Amino acid sequence: MGYWYDEEYEGKTRYGMKVRSVLFEGRSPFQKVEIVDSIHYGPTLVIDGVFMTSEREEHFYHEMLVQPAMTTAPRIGRVLIVGGGDGGTARETLRHEEVESVTLVEIDEMVVEACRAHMPTLGLPKDDRLEVVIGDGIDYAARAAEGSYDVVFLDGCDPVGPSEGLFNVEFYRSCRRLLTPDGVFAAQTASPILLEDLFLATVRALREVFPKVVTCFGPAPLYASDQWSWTLCSNDLDHLAVDDARARRVEEVSKYWNREIHAGAFALSNELKKTLG
Amino acid sequence: MGYWYDEEYEGKTRYGMKVRSVLFEGRSPFQKVEIVDSIHYGPTLVIDGVFMTSEREEHFYHEMLVQPAMTTAPRIGRVLIVGGGDGGTARETLRHEEVESVTLVEIDEMVVEACRAHMPTLGLPKDDRLEVVIGDGIDYAARAAEGSYDVVFLDGCDPVGPSEGLFNVEFYRSCRRLLTPDGVFAAQTASPILLEDLFLATVRALREVFPKVVTCFGPAPLYASDQWSWTLCSNDLDHLAVDDARARRVEEVSKYWNREIHAGAFALSNELKKTLG
Repeated sequence: MGYWYDEEYEGKTRYGMKVRSVLFEGRSPFQKVEIVDSIHYGPTLVIDGVFMTSEREEHFYHEMLVQPAMTTAPRIGRVLIVGGGDGGTARETLRHEEVESVTLVEIDEMVVEACRAHMPTLGLPKDDRLEVVIGDGIDYAARAAEGSYDVVFLDGCDPVGPSEGLFNVEFYRSCRRLLTPDGVFAAQTASPILLEDLFLATVRALREVFPKVVTCFGPAPLYASDQWSWTLCSNDLDHLAVDDARARRVEEVSKYWNREIHAGAFALSNELKKTLG
Repeated sequence: MGYWYDEEYEGKTRYGMKVRSVLFEGRSPFQKVEIVDSIHYGPTLVIDGVFMTSEREEHFYHEMLVQPAMTTAPRIGRVLIVGGGDGGTARETLRHEEVESVTLVEIDEMVVEACRAHMPTLGLPKDDRLEVVIGDGIDYAARAAEGSYDVVFLDGCDPVGPSEGLFNVEFYRSCRRLLTPDGVFAAQTASPILLEDLFLATVRALREVFPKVVTCFGPAPLYASDQWSWTLCSNDLDHLAVDDARARRVEEVSKYWNREIHAGAFALSNELKKTLG
């Protein structure tokens, strides 16, 4: 029953899931968007043949992108999300009652609509504090007012297709400009194992722009990389000083993140310690 | 060039590697043993179609099985390894100069010989302190003298084929009997994500036998599970009290393990905290 859907990594390895049926298939101006019903992962978003997120394991990625920043940033009232049309990052952000407004800028409306229709634990939430802008995050970041956000999330694909411009120094400078002086920029920064070169290049680019750059690590099962990374950038954030009240609220509902996971997630492997200094 | 070699997980997901050539292929009395030359992973041991270990990423598994025990056990003079014919666990154990003797009991001589011939960073090391016994680890553990080891490692496959008897309470009782009162038993305990049921059953069985059971987590890329686990069992080990002198020696050569990784690796995800209490 069903068929194998495989994603290949440079023709050297591949990860596949048995698919029961296709829930959605479309071609937007930007990319091919599919939601397939995987026997193991449940509804799974696939963009241009790359596995993006699934009902079964999306919590690892979204909790680890969002909660390290949201539990340590001095203020979290005004939040910007670049990308994130699947809704997971907005959901995690909106768990915090101190959040006054979340602006989410997603380039591809088809992603927003397909996830809302077909991914029950995902899909952009209904919340008066959330404003969804369909548009180019790079333009948006270049034009928005200086110092207008406490936290900015970059929740994009790896640097192919429309996401390519999201992985460079110029875009990171825009994001820094948008932040308040004690604001935090948090981004997914690929796998330090499967995509080591991309990971290192991204962290080095972030270091050119932000005075303090720290990376945490955790699982992201759908990416078959065995370890993913998320990086916090700031002027001088104490990334281990978790706000206990915020953390407790998250821990009531989170599946992966908690204060112990947070404290351990920033340890660098011996190899990365040598490479990143 | 080459062909895809896939491992399937319950017919729901699969992980594949492009293989250049087969370096070794044989059928022992116990299992089918292959070493293939993977473009991504280099020489890779495959047993009965299951990916076991590879030159590219074996250090994650072997460092995390061995070094948490070897840097925290009060004494490490006498070591037993059940399984481990590929040689990685013995290599990590023998890094410590306090080790006087390592007995390794591997059921399948073909694994020992094939890895020695075809896996350069693996293969059982030449060391006067190492005694290799080709035989059944379950029998060995049942017969060896009480209290004769400071540290016992279980480095077997998941519970299929000849490894099945290594995952049960009776075998764990044998291992406990072999240990000195402050001895440590360390075992791989599968993936808490891909193989959650097996992981939980194994940890619960270990808890029936040992007063103190703690699990650490880390990557094991070849298993496409996104997180693997290794469990330390003892009467009353302080698993966070790392011996600095031993740790420094390991850190000179290790690729993954170091003191910061160790301190962070024991954090339980929020879900596992609830499940395991």
